Amino acid sequence: MPPPHAGDPGLVATGPTQMAREIAEQPAALQRTLDALLPLRSQISALARGRRRLLLVARGSSDNAAIYGRYLAEVHAGVAGALAAPSVATLYAAQLDLSDTVTVCVSQSGSTQEIVETLEWAKQCGAATVAVTNVEGSPLASGADIALVTQAGPELAVPATKTYTTQVAALAVAVDALAPRRGSLDAEFGWVAEQAERMLDPGDALDAMVDALARTEEVLASGRGLAFGTTLEVALKLEETCLRPVRGLSYADLKHGPIAVVDQHLVTLLVAGPSGPTLPGLVDLAATVRAKGSPVLGLGGDAGFRAACDLAVAGPDLSELLAPLALPIPAQLLTERLARRLGLDPDAPRGLRKVTQTD
Amino acid sequence: MPPPHAGDPGLVATGPTQMAREIAEQPAALQRTLDALLPLRSQISALARGRRRLLLVARGSSDNAAIYGRYLAEVHAGVAGALAAPSVATLYAAQLDLSDTVTVCVSQSGSTQEIVETLEWAKQCGAATVAVTNVEGSPLASGADIALVTQAGPELAVPATKTYTTQVAALAVAVDALAPRRGSLDAEFGWVAEQAERMLDPGDALDAMVDALARTEEVLASGRGLAFGTTLEVALKLEETCLRPVRGLSYADLKHGPIAVVDQHLVTLLVAGPSGPTLPGLVDLAATVRAKGSPVLGLGGDAGFRAACDLAVAGPDLSELLAPLALPIPAQLLTERLARRLGLDPDAPRGLRKVTQTD
Repeated sequence: MPPPHAGDPGLVATGPTQMAREIAEQPAALQRTLDALLPLRSQISALARGRRRLLLVARGSSDNAAIYGRYLAEVHAGVAGALAAPSVATLYAAQLDLSDTVTVCVSQSGSTQEIVETLEWAKQCGAATVAVTNVEGSPLASGADIALVTQAGPELAVPATKTYTTQVAALAVAVDALAPRRGSLDAEFGWVAEQAERMLDPGDALDAMVDALARTEEVLASGRGLAFGTTLEVALKLEETCLRPVRGLSYADLKHGPIAVVDQHLVTLLVAGPSGPTLPGLVDLAATVRAKGSPVLGLGGDAGFRAACDLAVAGPDLSELLAPLALPIPAQLLTERLARRLGLDPDAPRGLRKVTQTD
Repeated sequence: MPPPHAGDPGLVATGPTQMAREIAEQPAALQRTLDALLPLRSQISALARGRRRLLLVARGSSDNAAIYGRYLAEVHAGVAGALAAPSVATLYAAQLDLSDTVTVCVSQSGSTQEIVETLEWAKQCGAATVAVTNVEGSPLASGADIALVTQAGPELAVPATKTYTTQVAALAVAVDALAPRRGSLDAEFGWVAEQAERMLDPGDALDAMVDALARTEEVLASGRGLAFGTTLEVALKLEETCLRPVRGLSYADLKHGPIAVVDQHLVTLLVAGPSGPTLPGLVDLAATVRAKGSPVLGLGGDAGFRAACDLAVAGPDLSELLAPLALPIPAQLLTERLARRLGLDPDAPRGLRKVTQTD
């Protein structure tokens, strides 16, 4: 943890929150998860034989992890992916032919009824099934053909932190198992924990970002491609923990309408991988929204991206493919510090419970 | 059009806007579109032979129409659907096997570069292609195996109204062509224009909704299932035209975090079909957010749903499957009236152009 910021009464007044402790546990949690799951790739690969579609099922933070899994499947493994609409399964009980599909169901608790029911539905539709959950022996883990149990340990703070990044890691493993040339990411998987450790000390710019966010009532987060899931997770985390409406939008969708509401009253948070084909568009977007008077905060990207932002924090030294395993960490720190700055309890945001039940 | 509202200087000061005129053209535009496209179903059905996946490609309002198409495909036709992530095609140039897929690309102008490029990419990946566009001879229409040209006529106001509902109609036709028992909706297709006509006179409750929305800076729209695309379109329309941030969320996603920010400062707009398995959950949601102090406006639903809302406007007498062809109309009227109430020009919202170019 960085030293307390002199101007921040929250940081002086209280010890580390549970959320801060759990954020700091991520390097070890990621390493344990990768150690446990990477050896399961040949089993996943065997399960997927003859199937060429990936269907992801999730809600909330897990859905943001699933969105990363979908981009990774298409970009890295050449496997067409989709996010399930759970109501199609649980409410409409549609009969689909999923005999060409591997369905990956993602739920931290492994007991969210909607996700467990959608797993059962996918099996009846002929899908092979993989569970990604933090709870061994949970209904989701027991019901799936293969359970990828993340090794985050118990998470007590309501906002998902270590359970989120370990889900992202599990999805990277699952997708890598579907790639034709498996193993191309192996060296990089070995650097993830060390890069996550680096992210725990983001420097002074992060506190300046807390200042900027504390002054606004309105935040918009934007990103694209492989970092889009991270973007949505950053938005969700800030919103549920700091109780300010925060939207996450692809920059392409942003240009189709919502760009109209960007002005000096809104702070824009841009999230980017370290390289890749989406980066030039994000640099352009930074210039566009700054020209509209909106302060621009940047997370990740390259030096050119960060220079285009008013304030920026560098991301991990990982490729665009695996950066989303550690890139959320500075945003989690930002969220935790902003909540305290606003006099809120980051461990137990108003109106939320750890396990959400939806039908 | 209902008589001018006495307390509204905008309605007294100006004649009908272009947007109001185009809203009123929808019954005829829908009838022309259905007349032109329904006979193409056997051609679509032949193109789709041996293919069992639907991939939809769109942005902005067209994306909201595509979301409806995806639910309809799964619920009505039993065909697994997905929304494409265009950056996977245009920026990452991923190589996917789409030989089992019909790709439907939706763009009003038929010349949005991103959508045209994604169509070409889908063809190279082996997909059969269908274009839904309002412009005959556009690059999208020329590039696709089958062009479904909507018959909205030229749309001059920037907010899409008649081009949106006719896109929804075109998607209903395309999906019906994929259904095993084609023709089950034929009688109902014949009632759409008359129900759209009914929607043009929503009664006094709509003006009371304009009052409620004029008093707030923050709006959240929620819905689910077959009406979810309508929900997102209502949110986008209000936001881009009235320059207020408006979010559209599935009620299941809402419960996973954003519910925390619902309070008396936020107006909740619920959008529902006339029946179906998502309706009980929306009635519950109305009670939940009212208990948090948020005024609840309802669009569509049944009598029980409308009784659970503070203010409500009935939707068309169409089944849940086809209600989205006419349900957007009262929301378009709401948007047009609210914009004028706020002293804004609904025909030319700040910062937007008719054709958005994204890469």
